[in-house]
Amino acid sequence: MSNEEARSAGDLRNTGLSLRHDRTWDYELDRIVDEVERKDAEKVGLQFPEGLKRRGPAVADDLRARLDDTRIMLSGQPCYGACDLDTYLMRRTDVFVHFGHSPMKESDSIIYVPLFSNVDVEPIMQEARDELHDGDVGLVTTAQHMNQFEEMRTWLEERGYTVHTRRGDDRLTNEGQVLGCNYASADIDADQVLYVGGGKFHPLGLAMEHPEKNVVIADPVNNAVSIADAEQFLKERYASVHKAMDAEQWGVIFCTKIGQGRFDQAEEIVENNDNAYLITMDEVTPDRLMNFDMDAFVNTGCPRITTDDGPQFHKPMLTPGEYEIAVGNKPLEDLSFDTFHGTW
Amino acid sequence: MSNEEARSAGDLRNTGLSLRHDRTWDYELDRIVDEVERKDAEKVGLQFPEGLKRRGPAVADDLRARLDDTRIMLSGQPCYGACDLDTYLMRRTDVFVHFGHSPMKESDSIIYVPLFSNVDVEPIMQEARDELHDGDVGLVTTAQHMNQFEEMRTWLEERGYTVHTRRGDDRLTNEGQVLGCNYASADIDADQVLYVGGGKFHPLGLAMEHPEKNVVIADPVNNAVSIADAEQFLKERYASVHKAMDAEQWGVIFCTKIGQGRFDQAEEIVENNDNAYLITMDEVTPDRLMNFDMDAFVNTGCPRITTDDGPQFHKPMLTPGEYEIAVGNKPLEDLSFDTFHGTW
Repeated sequence: MSNEEARSAGDLRNTGLSLRHDRTWDYELDRIVDEVERKDAEKVGLQFPEGLKRRGPAVADDLRARLDDTRIMLSGQPCYGACDLDTYLMRRTDVFVHFGHSPMKESDSIIYVPLFSNVDVEPIMQEARDELHDGDVGLVTTAQHMNQFEEMRTWLEERGYTVHTRRGDDRLTNEGQVLGCNYASADIDADQVLYVGGGKFHPLGLAMEHPEKNVVIADPVNNAVSIADAEQFLKERYASVHKAMDAEQWGVIFCTKIGQGRFDQAEEIVENNDNAYLITMDEVTPDRLMNFDMDAFVNTGCPRITTDDGPQFHKPMLTPGEYEIAVGNKPLEDLSFDTFHGTW
Repeated sequence: MSNEEARSAGDLRNTGLSLRHDRTWDYELDRIVDEVERKDAEKVGLQFPEGLKRRGPAVADDLRARLDDTRIMLSGQPCYGACDLDTYLMRRTDVFVHFGHSPMKESDSIIYVPLFSNVDVEPIMQEARDELHDGDVGLVTTAQHMNQFEEMRTWLEERGYTVHTRRGDDRLTNEGQVLGCNYASADIDADQVLYVGGGKFHPLGLAMEHPEKNVVIADPVNNAVSIADAEQFLKERYASVHKAMDAEQWGVIFCTKIGQGRFDQAEEIVENNDNAYLITMDEVTPDRLMNFDMDAFVNTGCPRITTDDGPQFHKPMLTPGEYEIAVGNKPLEDLSFDTFHGTW
């Protein structure tokens, strides 16, 4: 796999929400209208993930047709997860709707509309059986397919598999759900995991987090079966760690996004290294870091920015765990995927 | 002038703060240390403009050497003006220092360190006299050279000029000061204006705002004299307005940056156009707008994004005034530079 393929495979945008074919989503307009009327709301904020932002105007039209004197505001902030709420818009609207992600933390101020997929997963699961051995299998999926999770489990059990599932931790709403940064639901007693969902973003993270497990991808969106191969990513991680070993001046990034803050971790690094500087930002991009004259960066925010976008930064960008290796506090063998736990 | 030259000439980064040669700035450390001690501050936030972000670590080091148990945090958010405070960092630190811009609005929560230039302006002013006729001349400069404004005035008066200066409006701290978005200080009774300062960003805006005046640039940073020529910019503006005349679906951008909000203006457009949608964001970038399936955009935030970065957006991007022309509410002759007034 080339660098470019690896990046595109793990690209944050390539998460199954940006679809090649058109699809009808259920925007749950009734629920939104009810909430607007209940609260007598004047301002309604809508936040969509990147791949669905272009549906915003049509949803706004549908709402305006049913609501008088209600101002609809679309969030133009980048959004890659429920960790990534547009808090500015949320605080300035009476009803705030976050589409496409399951709740990371329930709140009366937010309506989460999950946007479940209506694609039939069974044909691709059937195809994926060629890659599974009999017996124990873990089962995970994303928010978009959670509505069919029990059917998936039953379908596998009817074919003789012993299906292992877990709820994971606080960050995950549902049993069997994975996030790009959290695979606690795959901490199960099986050497193979079936991932049902679109894109390679999630299963690649899963394969990095659980290198001992065979991760079979049944992708009903692109209608393809494959095995998640984290090797290219791991090579890139080792290369970045090695490059950063010579670094003197470190930029330690504290991400200000509501669900991506690990302040204690960032602060601990800075307190123990006189050549480390705390930098706060919301979007962590190559452009923004270019302005800082650092030898290397540690990102305490979204680990997927570090692993997937890493090669695009002008200087090595490490996860907190990788930083400990680079500065010699831990052995190279400790290199592992940086998962994110808790909410806010 | 090619598109590329025009863009680089007006580039937001090219404002004289990003210097080719090294320069010693006065970071006013004593003032910061005094304030930290007075407030018994635990957390200090530092915000630098883009061209000076790389000085952040050295300033942090100097402060850490003088202060015990104080955490220094550097803002990694893009920053192009005093309109652009990192309010997240400001609200979470006991002392917040904004470098490189004069106050748009005084506040006890903010220490503004202007970073005055120590470059000698007289040699380049002498050279600029070749481009000035005798008699009346307006004089303007930027925050970086305000400390020498009275010397500039005296120098011109001693050479027989009648010097016209103005304070401008609330958005401007000082007499004779211009901002990239506000040239009220050049509303003076003279057909020529001498701009003393680095870069072409400010004088090009000035020439757009006052097309009837000859704007002579005396640039002591790059040691060059020239005449501000807004023609290329104006051509681009006309082209954008023409392209947008066919637009059906409009994205109306409300910028959430503290000093760039014109909500009433944005709302008025949306209320009077069923095919207009309000989009909220902080950084207005081509990437972010790419996700929205609009035919054209109106930007109620920073006018320099519209005029200077305009050609980089995938769809026409207009100022509110240009929008009125594109939809037929006003004649083409009304096209003018979009200046920004007031604070927040």
